[in-house]
Amino acid sequence: MITCLAGGVGAAKFLSGLVQIVPPEEITAVVNTGDDIVLHGLRVSPDLDTVTYTLAGAVNPDTGWGLAGESWAAMESLDRYSGQTWFRLGDRDLATHMYRTQRLAEGATLAEATAEITRAWGLALRLLPMSNDRVETNITLRATDSTISFQEWFVGQRHATAVSAVSFEGAAAARPAPGVLEAIDTADVVVVCPSNPIVSIGPLLEVPGLSDALAARRDRCVAISPIIAGKALKGPADTLMTDLGHEPSVVGVARLYAKFASVLIVDDADSGLSAAVEAEGMRCVVAPTVMTDAPAAAELARRALAATA
Amino acid sequence: MITCLAGGVGAAKFLSGLVQIVPPEEITAVVNTGDDIVLHGLRVSPDLDTVTYTLAGAVNPDTGWGLAGESWAAMESLDRYSGQTWFRLGDRDLATHMYRTQRLAEGATLAEATAEITRAWGLALRLLPMSNDRVETNITLRATDSTISFQEWFVGQRHATAVSAVSFEGAAAARPAPGVLEAIDTADVVVVCPSNPIVSIGPLLEVPGLSDALAARRDRCVAISPIIAGKALKGPADTLMTDLGHEPSVVGVARLYAKFASVLIVDDADSGLSAAVEAEGMRCVVAPTVMTDAPAAAELARRALAATA
Repeated sequence: MITCLAGGVGAAKFLSGLVQIVPPEEITAVVNTGDDIVLHGLRVSPDLDTVTYTLAGAVNPDTGWGLAGESWAAMESLDRYSGQTWFRLGDRDLATHMYRTQRLAEGATLAEATAEITRAWGLALRLLPMSNDRVETNITLRATDSTISFQEWFVGQRHATAVSAVSFEGAAAARPAPGVLEAIDTADVVVVCPSNPIVSIGPLLEVPGLSDALAARRDRCVAISPIIAGKALKGPADTLMTDLGHEPSVVGVARLYAKFASVLIVDDADSGLSAAVEAEGMRCVVAPTVMTDAPAAAELARRALAATA
Repeated sequence: MITCLAGGVGAAKFLSGLVQIVPPEEITAVVNTGDDIVLHGLRVSPDLDTVTYTLAGAVNPDTGWGLAGESWAAMESLDRYSGQTWFRLGDRDLATHMYRTQRLAEGATLAEATAEITRAWGLALRLLPMSNDRVETNITLRATDSTISFQEWFVGQRHATAVSAVSFEGAAAARPAPGVLEAIDTADVVVVCPSNPIVSIGPLLEVPGLSDALAARRDRCVAISPIIAGKALKGPADTLMTDLGHEPSVVGVARLYAKFASVLIVDDADSGLSAAVEAEGMRCVVAPTVMTDAPAAAELARRALAATA
């Protein structure tokens, strides 16, 4: 059994590689829900949906999120009302949020709704939200010291504004979703996907019990650096690390992950930092980590599973 | 100033006639919200939207509700999840519900959200929900004695099942929306549109204060029968009246309206029942009431305004 800690696009690509080499029934992905948001009354879970759509082969290949062949009639019509359109929800994607919202209103948990959604897309792996309870990632802006939701910063401000703090509202009272701790406890390998350490993996670590469970499996836990040559392939992992005083490098990632992961996979481009990573207490594996196509993603998954052997 | 009590399709057609002969700024429509429903977390107000879309010239001419040229990507995608699709919401129509839901969540009243929506569609008449408070029309089924929401019966069961009672949850505690009572008090003419007496006009009468305000203006109040030759042109007004022990005829309508309206306009087809209507205490005006086109709707509006002169 393989358990993966997952954010959005990077994790989705890694998982699409993993399912090529491991029967999906043997995979559990524990997914960040800190950047979930309620828009127009609809509960949007971006990371859960990105993983689902990617594994279903339905994701928009140009963006890495949302659905391929999407239409935008609802958003275009919202413009008439000068409604909230900064977070674009396609017509087909809306159905996912409508279904999730309806099920939550009926008393289903987020994990139950997620299981129904993934089943509807024909996925055999298990996708678990990190928690059924709301945890909201909030961003404090350096310039104004004001705090906004993750999506307001990430999408609304295109993550272009400097950040002084990241906090996780509700985390202290959140419980791991059923199965999360067991999936970590019993996994043959735990993989920390190449996701943003601060705002994708960070929220998971704030759910009580999760970080202890991980630490207990440190020798079976391998992480993949989302930072390559000091830059994030996609998204703000590098600038966010810098803003919060972390070195935006594989060494900075190692410092964040060393207490619960024993191996860090870094890209070929960072082979020169191998010794520095190991100085942080993680074994360093150098491999191609840019998942340009399906074989590359499968190969990275193979390297990750081999790394703890 | 003209104040109209309005349900959905019939009222929308009448109002589209009225705006041809009266400056829309001088018209207030007080609209039924008893058949509002929350679906997928979205607040749907069918009668408000039917009136809005009709007056904006954007209504689907084939159905009399919804938007012309609508697309259905969200509903089709909901099928994947076996989601709730018995109440069809078009992609463009969804934007209206999303905007309304968002504004209510932000603390706006339904009246405020409605004013914003009608302004966005360029309407100059004033559309008021009967109340900013939730009033829910419920239908008790004769066969099972179970109670379901209006829309579950009207749309879900295609109003084909016999009804033993209609009730209005929340009505006793509801307050008329700001401006509703004043609009009735100060109108030169109050028009009860050709809407379902039980489930379109009925909910308005249950809002405390509304029926007294109407009764005080009885001499200026003219109603248009939605029943023609014993049948509703559209919808279940006739069967519902029968189910609840009312005669499904203009005479039955007169009995329901006589205490607050002094004139009943009946269709040419019912000219033979004129004396029977007058025996119920309403002056009877015979006129063509089938609004087959815009001129016919304008002519009916003209007759209604003339009837109280």
